[in-house]
Amino acid sequence: MEERMIASPSFYADWRHVFKLDPDRTIPDEALAAVCRSGTDAILVGGSSGVTYDNTAKLLARIRRHDTPCALELTDPENAVPGFDGYFIPMVMNARDKDWLIGHQTSAIEEFGFLLPWESVAGEAYIVLNGESTAARVSGADSAIPESRVMAYGQLADRLWRVPVVYLEYSGTFGDMSLTRKVRGGLRQARLFYGGGIRTLEQARQAGEAADTVVVGNVIYDDLEAALATVEAVKISAKEQDHVF
Amino acid sequence: MEERMIASPSFYADWRHVFKLDPDRTIPDEALAAVCRSGTDAILVGGSSGVTYDNTAKLLARIRRHDTPCALELTDPENAVPGFDGYFIPMVMNARDKDWLIGHQTSAIEEFGFLLPWESVAGEAYIVLNGESTAARVSGADSAIPESRVMAYGQLADRLWRVPVVYLEYSGTFGDMSLTRKVRGGLRQARLFYGGGIRTLEQARQAGEAADTVVVGNVIYDDLEAALATVEAVKISAKEQDHVF
Repeated sequence: MEERMIASPSFYADWRHVFKLDPDRTIPDEALAAVCRSGTDAILVGGSSGVTYDNTAKLLARIRRHDTPCALELTDPENAVPGFDGYFIPMVMNARDKDWLIGHQTSAIEEFGFLLPWESVAGEAYIVLNGESTAARVSGADSAIPESRVMAYGQLADRLWRVPVVYLEYSGTFGDMSLTRKVRGGLRQARLFYGGGIRTLEQARQAGEAADTVVVGNVIYDDLEAALATVEAVKISAKEQDHVF
Repeated sequence: MEERMIASPSFYADWRHVFKLDPDRTIPDEALAAVCRSGTDAILVGGSSGVTYDNTAKLLARIRRHDTPCALELTDPENAVPGFDGYFIPMVMNARDKDWLIGHQTSAIEEFGFLLPWESVAGEAYIVLNGESTAARVSGADSAIPESRVMAYGQLADRLWRVPVVYLEYSGTFGDMSLTRKVRGGLRQARLFYGGGIRTLEQARQAGEAADTVVVGNVIYDDLEAALATVEAVKISAKEQDHVF
């Protein structure tokens, strides 16, 4: 409206490559240092189970020994550790019922909203596409949906909600890059995050071409060298510009 | 993101007073002319039952004899009559399940999205607060919610979704102006629409002070003179500027 403008959260506006660290998993200091100094654009902290205030605060303190920007994906207000550069609040578009779509989030705002640093908070429209993942089980996501529905979720979030981030989450498996490209092509203003199953240079390059921002997670804990190599692979990949309109 | 901007739909950006016409109700030509020439900012076409493509198209054709801007509230893709200045797609925040929150809307985009004039489409975050209304029955809205939850719905829609319009719908009864003011005060960028039960100058003035946009509906059909008088009452009311932040 005329006198009020969107104070658009933009701490993530230039992210091409992000490492996602799970507070519930162990990472030695040297590995953490390598991750932070890898050239990645940011560290995203979050996990689907076992996340607490304590393990989140401890991980943040260790990341803060380095200069890398660091954001928290907030799924439970009890874990709202202050001091991150930004906070994402996921809303699962393909959750079967309302709870993980906006229910829990509304309750959290009702109770703790006054504590949130709103200028650094951004909504994330999640579409969870690996039905076997913890994220799918926790949120009750219906991952067995056709391409057309995935695209419609993306467009609703982008154009009716006007959410700043749409997140295709294949957690645990490498996703459908053709669909990822199509979803991105249907977005008008939102940034498309892709996450899931990236273990090789070739996968990182493909995801970098298909999405705006590529999230690399599990491989950090299994094969650090492979993880570190994804940074350059994403950054030199040519992001395709085949938008639908 | 850097290369894509929000093409913000703004056909409603300056609306202070709006008349809402129901395609399923009868209005004589003279009454329609008086409504269109009343000085209102726009005609909003929509209803909770009995709306069809035919009665919507007929009403639009009659409104088009006048110069008043005219938008359609689209709850069923079958009624997507072309030629309106803008299209609102309501999403009911306090619907008990997902269907009227984003379910039906996603299905409609999946099937008919390619037909939508997206540059003239805006999402509306509805909060339905009269549990006895047809809108509440159709959408399965839970209207027996505390003030704090109404405010949280508004903030989630405004700040996580970034939706352009939040709509407090008291359809059939005059609402709580104190709550309306509070909800508006908690919005950062969305415009607050208020609708429901306005029959007198005093109610129109109060709603004009509490909300950004005042929607006047049923009284048109019951007491045209009273309806017409609400235009001036809203326009001279001083919109309060007591935003929370």
